Amino acid sequence: MFEHLLPLRLQALPPRAARFCLGVDSFLRNELGLDLRGRTLLLGFSGGPDSTALLLALHCLAPRLGVSLRAAHLDHGLRPDSAAEAGRAAAFCAGLGVECAVRRVDALALSRALGAGVEDAGRQARYAFFAELQDAAPGSLLAVGHQLNDLAEDQLMRQMRGVGWPELAGMPAWDPQRRLLRPLLLSPRRAGLAFLRALGAESYADPANADPANLRNRVRVQILPLFLRENPSYLDHAARLWRLAAMDREVLEPAAPLPAPGPDGSVLLPRTELEALPQALRLRRMKAALESLGPGQPLFANLLRLDQAFCARRSRAVLQFPGRKAARVGRAGIRFFPANALTA
Amino acid sequence: MFEHLLPLRLQALPPRAARFCLGVDSFLRNELGLDLRGRTLLLGFSGGPDSTALLLALHCLAPRLGVSLRAAHLDHGLRPDSAAEAGRAAAFCAGLGVECAVRRVDALALSRALGAGVEDAGRQARYAFFAELQDAAPGSLLAVGHQLNDLAEDQLMRQMRGVGWPELAGMPAWDPQRRLLRPLLLSPRRAGLAFLRALGAESYADPANADPANLRNRVRVQILPLFLRENPSYLDHAARLWRLAAMDREVLEPAAPLPAPGPDGSVLLPRTELEALPQALRLRRMKAALESLGPGQPLFANLLRLDQAFCARRSRAVLQFPGRKAARVGRAGIRFFPANALTA
Repeated sequence: MFEHLLPLRLQALPPRAARFCLGVDSFLRNELGLDLRGRTLLLGFSGGPDSTALLLALHCLAPRLGVSLRAAHLDHGLRPDSAAEAGRAAAFCAGLGVECAVRRVDALALSRALGAGVEDAGRQARYAFFAELQDAAPGSLLAVGHQLNDLAEDQLMRQMRGVGWPELAGMPAWDPQRRLLRPLLLSPRRAGLAFLRALGAESYADPANADPANLRNRVRVQILPLFLRENPSYLDHAARLWRLAAMDREVLEPAAPLPAPGPDGSVLLPRTELEALPQALRLRRMKAALESLGPGQPLFANLLRLDQAFCARRSRAVLQFPGRKAARVGRAGIRFFPANALTA
Repeated sequence: MFEHLLPLRLQALPPRAARFCLGVDSFLRNELGLDLRGRTLLLGFSGGPDSTALLLALHCLAPRLGVSLRAAHLDHGLRPDSAAEAGRAAAFCAGLGVECAVRRVDALALSRALGAGVEDAGRQARYAFFAELQDAAPGSLLAVGHQLNDLAEDQLMRQMRGVGWPELAGMPAWDPQRRLLRPLLLSPRRAGLAFLRALGAESYADPANADPANLRNRVRVQILPLFLRENPSYLDHAARLWRLAAMDREVLEPAAPLPAPGPDGSVLLPRTELEALPQALRLRRMKAALESLGPGQPLFANLLRLDQAFCARRSRAVLQFPGRKAARVGRAGIRFFPANALTA
């Protein structure tokens, strides 16, 4: 254990551990452009190596970042000793002077009730717990321990699912809508493990699940290792692809706000605006309009079909989209309707 | 055999086979926007199923496309019966009234001489043979049988290698520099096989190599099947990604010509032009300038470094790039130098 280092201070860390923390600091500040001063960071803390590395790094960086730190641990009730693990997690946080909220759920019962997989149900319960704590601490941000290996797995899963660009490059490091932060997203798992070793810190539980019934586990255990075997610096590529997507987003998904919805909730993209865009941007603008109307992801093939109807000026053409949304081509442009508005 | 269908005419094909041909016609015309009237298509013909399907489809489409067809078969000399296979390939072409040039090489000896793998040496010899025939028939285009499974494999190999966007989406269907056409690129392998079956046609040799020493074979045999198992419509995704990249290219790689090189062969990208671009386009413009100066692919990390030097106005900063090229930041912009020009 690292009691001899307590209280942890960045200046007193072994050089290797300090470099890891400064890398996280630079990622938050320079790459994400975030100023976190005065914020509360609520850390999703499983007790596994990733979130332990995140907890320790954020703890060391807290004075420098100007943040205060809290933690939250959800006991999924899936292992006989999970309550003891939760106790150890809370004690670990207490040792750092970080308050840790603990709740217990029965993820198995939940998964039956939801008709979802256990991991899925567990994740839903976890994020609901975190959201509740965030609501009780206005302005707080949720920080989670996803790291570069998770990102590479996420990219491969997105590739499999058939996701387009720039979404193909994986999960965001900062999601303003969910007020969710992933400070370790470009740090390889082994860097976090080396950081823990440098501090003499142990992680208490490894929530990594190797059940091959779960796609993420198959990607982790079977597919990512194949990519790493072919290209030992594959993780660098995953980080590069992520950075390229962040740049491309600026060009491909301009931040121009969508027009305000009409009284029936529908949104009109004017013909003149759409005609001035190259196809790549026109399709993404249509996608943004549809997504603004509620859940349901439009398929690329359907967007293409809508674009063809628009370019051929097939006025009154109506296309249906997932989430019972619809789009109608007219002389003035394309009008997008939320679920059932067109038939109401 | 399909002698009863000879001479093959689009109008006389079984409906399923006609649909396959019309799909190829539409891809060339509508998607690639090519008008091939009056062209000679030189078909790289291995005798395997892909190039046989391509030969038969182009043969049926030749009147409609307004092209004349020739074939070329390289005997790699790797199997005892490869000369007999070459004879059968030429006879197959002759049966369709298509002239087929045949040459024999010793790919094994060539691979030793070049210090390259056998498949690599074979490919080099093949494309050198095709280029020679193309040079003798000015205006001719080379057509090769790559199909959607090849494209999906190519995407996965590019992903492994760490290629950016839009290159990640795979090989082009039309490469004007190489005058190379891939008419089947968005047709799944099974569609070509079904086309052959509908015609009662057999393919004579399957050059597909399962040697696991070769990366492409590992991707074909091991990795692509994993993706297809997770997502049975994965090939549709590969096609979709390719189409998205074609659109994005228009936005991300604008066709504006590069400034003419100076007397020393160097190219200047003016500061005002670069500063007006978002970073995603600025980096790609720098990449284009470097690539115009000869072989050697710039790394993303180096382009980022160059961009940082440019944005920080670090005048006189010099960065080296693969292929012994260099870039120098100056007040007027960035000047890119071909191999050794800076030190000469």
